[in-house]
Amino acid sequence: MASLATSIIFSDSPFRASPIHNHRISRYASRSSTAFVVSPRRRGLTVVKSALIEPDGGKLMDLVVDESRRSVMKREAETIPVRIRLNRVDLEWVHVLSEGWASPLKGFMRQSEFLQTLHFNSIRLENGSVVNMSVPIVLAIDEEQKSRIGDSNRVTLVDSVGNPIAILSDIEIYKHPKEERIARTWGTTAPGLPYAEEAITKSGNWLIGGDLQVLEPVKYNDGLDRFRLSPSQLREEFIRRDADAVFAFQLRNPVHNGHALLMTDTRRRLLEMGYKNPVLLLNPLGGFTKADDVPLNWRMLQHEKVLEDGVLDPETTVVSIFPSPMLYAGPTEVQWHAKARINAGANFYIVGRDPAGMSHPKEKRDLYDADHGKKVLSMAPGLERLNILPFKVAAYDTTQGKMAFFDPSRSQDFLFISGTKMRGLAKKKENPPDGFMCPSGWKVLVDYYDSLGSESGNGRVSQAVFSA
Amino acid sequence: MASLATSIIFSDSPFRASPIHNHRISRYASRSSTAFVVSPRRRGLTVVKSALIEPDGGKLMDLVVDESRRSVMKREAETIPVRIRLNRVDLEWVHVLSEGWASPLKGFMRQSEFLQTLHFNSIRLENGSVVNMSVPIVLAIDEEQKSRIGDSNRVTLVDSVGNPIAILSDIEIYKHPKEERIARTWGTTAPGLPYAEEAITKSGNWLIGGDLQVLEPVKYNDGLDRFRLSPSQLREEFIRRDADAVFAFQLRNPVHNGHALLMTDTRRRLLEMGYKNPVLLLNPLGGFTKADDVPLNWRMLQHEKVLEDGVLDPETTVVSIFPSPMLYAGPTEVQWHAKARINAGANFYIVGRDPAGMSHPKEKRDLYDADHGKKVLSMAPGLERLNILPFKVAAYDTTQGKMAFFDPSRSQDFLFISGTKMRGLAKKKENPPDGFMCPSGWKVLVDYYDSLGSESGNGRVSQAVFSA
Repeated sequence: MASLATSIIFSDSPFRASPIHNHRISRYASRSSTAFVVSPRRRGLTVVKSALIEPDGGKLMDLVVDESRRSVMKREAETIPVRIRLNRVDLEWVHVLSEGWASPLKGFMRQSEFLQTLHFNSIRLENGSVVNMSVPIVLAIDEEQKSRIGDSNRVTLVDSVGNPIAILSDIEIYKHPKEERIARTWGTTAPGLPYAEEAITKSGNWLIGGDLQVLEPVKYNDGLDRFRLSPSQLREEFIRRDADAVFAFQLRNPVHNGHALLMTDTRRRLLEMGYKNPVLLLNPLGGFTKADDVPLNWRMLQHEKVLEDGVLDPETTVVSIFPSPMLYAGPTEVQWHAKARINAGANFYIVGRDPAGMSHPKEKRDLYDADHGKKVLSMAPGLERLNILPFKVAAYDTTQGKMAFFDPSRSQDFLFISGTKMRGLAKKKENPPDGFMCPSGWKVLVDYYDSLGSESGNGRVSQAVFSA
Repeated sequence: MASLATSIIFSDSPFRASPIHNHRISRYASRSSTAFVVSPRRRGLTVVKSALIEPDGGKLMDLVVDESRRSVMKREAETIPVRIRLNRVDLEWVHVLSEGWASPLKGFMRQSEFLQTLHFNSIRLENGSVVNMSVPIVLAIDEEQKSRIGDSNRVTLVDSVGNPIAILSDIEIYKHPKEERIARTWGTTAPGLPYAEEAITKSGNWLIGGDLQVLEPVKYNDGLDRFRLSPSQLREEFIRRDADAVFAFQLRNPVHNGHALLMTDTRRRLLEMGYKNPVLLLNPLGGFTKADDVPLNWRMLQHEKVLEDGVLDPETTVVSIFPSPMLYAGPTEVQWHAKARINAGANFYIVGRDPAGMSHPKEKRDLYDADHGKKVLSMAPGLERLNILPFKVAAYDTTQGKMAFFDPSRSQDFLFISGTKMRGLAKKKENPPDGFMCPSGWKVLVDYYDSLGSESGNGRVSQAVFSA
């Protein structure tokens, strides 16, 4: 599986200037890149080189303490009297923040950032420019923790077993308006929203914002850390591959041949537009997901099979895990998914039908209109630089025996295989129609549902799979 | 009472250039103004004159059909097969739109405007600039109306007795996501939100947007129409008065001396800042309000008494009715209140504690944090041109026997008289402490609650009052 992220193409050709690139002088300095960027305002230059899209705010945040200062900072973290224990989702956000996916955020949101996120899905920077920020990245504390903090200016964040993870400085404590946060993020307050139940409803009545210094790169030791490339590492990878366009595909489900068709077709369209080497960032979501989604380790294994099978071309595909938790917040969340990928270097974003959507937790309908995500994304403040590529609908074409773009003029020829239907087939160890998914990828799904049968099977099987 | 809006000061002095004005060439052409504006980019000009703040989008919308075309358009409205009946709140929005309070909106929102309003509290114009727009201004229709419309391109909007009010053209029909609209506008979906119950919950499942042509200026024939100045008329009035700053005060309650103190003090501060003639726009909300608010006619009478009593200076005050319905949507709505007043020519906006707030409909607490309105307003996209003046807290100072700014160092000297307490006193025909409100203004409140005693009294008494 290591081949996914490390199949590197060396090339001598310089970065090509392109109209979709942001031509301001890039303040992003890649450690490994020799590409340089000049402003197009400097006329008369014949060699104009362009680089990857600039991160939000102009600078990719890296909140991990420099190795040289790590031991000093760790000792310091031990001396800070107040320790706040992070739960699973908190830690995922620390990870997200630490690597700059949420650039220019420097830590958990203070109140002004939180309010702007809730009301405007964007944050105005000191220079007056606006960056997109649609989901609150906040840390909740309870009354007792608040009173322990008192007038302190900083706290140490620790993991579930008490190991210091980060220092949060210049803290600001403000009320946690849970109902309002949920209503404005999801457009409903119906009980049963997976993220709200996991991370909000039972959390503390206060929020604590501040600047993060993360003591070490966040690792999970689950066999998948090597597939968790940071935005900085992804940018290095795209530069090494000499990408002149990066198109991101967010997913939290197994890849079927319809997805693959779409990704291949996107590359074809980008080549037609004149790009020489568009690279796909296949960026499965790695954080919290709801109980009936396929777990990350199984999905990664399935993705590996899809690449091995040649359904996607490893030479122009980077598979890497996006460490964010999943909110299932539809049009609000899709902006976060897109914005984070700008920070990872993507200038094209493929948006599907009902992105980040789910069923209404209480009513028999989808929570969001299937078109709202695409529309909201295309109008979102701070995402003007990103090229939004609407998902074409793919379905199983019974006349060709494969996944193809849906042709409404012969709709009777097409079979729509929903996620629910797919899961149902895999659970019953039945096969989908030939050409829906590569057989080795399908087998992973069947194995996953099979593993659910034995109580202790899940963890063991996945470990075995990944050591194979 | 006519004196309120018509006490005009003539002056020869031209408009003064001021740093808070918008110096772009104004596309707003007042019918009566001789002031002109030049761009500061045209250097070397010695006579640079500035005018009132530019309306949102650069041009004040006027959706009322020109008098010359009125009879033709009325006949045309009669020929359009589909007629949509407007309820009270719909008609108020037609009024609001027709006069350009919501500029640059040209009619009820189409979906792209609706989605931007819900998600971003702002709308991007074709030229890339952003205007604030925080509350949906939409028209709901039901399935039956939708099917009657079919493929038609326009409909006639009629009042409760079937009189044509307006033509809605180039229509777009889209789903009305009621729960999501309520959640994103109010930050709660709890039953009992007055506007939601009045205008959303029972309304149709579809929204219809389009361009409005309003057949005649909207009138209510309630004795108050002469106090309903449009943004265009208000701008003329400010120009006639030679205002070099206009500060708006939104209210939906009787004016007490604490409000008056604040308004007088604001004028003093503006004079200190170097303005020569700051004019107050006292702009009581005239549309739908919740059942326990004091009705408009009584409030207007109370405001008249306050001016007669000299608590506010009629020479520097314009009292006029803001025709919008009230949403009680706190930080979301205060942006609308401020944005509409930019269109009416105000460049300063006084924001109070918990603006447009109310009690949570189900829980024993305020729906919004008292500080959120002020904070959200100060960060809102599209309102950068507006000077936000936070409300200083006034309370009854028992040592002085009058309303004064609260001094926390001697908090024991101050008495806070809440709206609830004020209403309670007026209902019992008791008097508040001397100096809380001018006696003639207080008498209006006592009379109002007295009139509630007789079942049929309310309407009759208010008519009598206004014919007096």
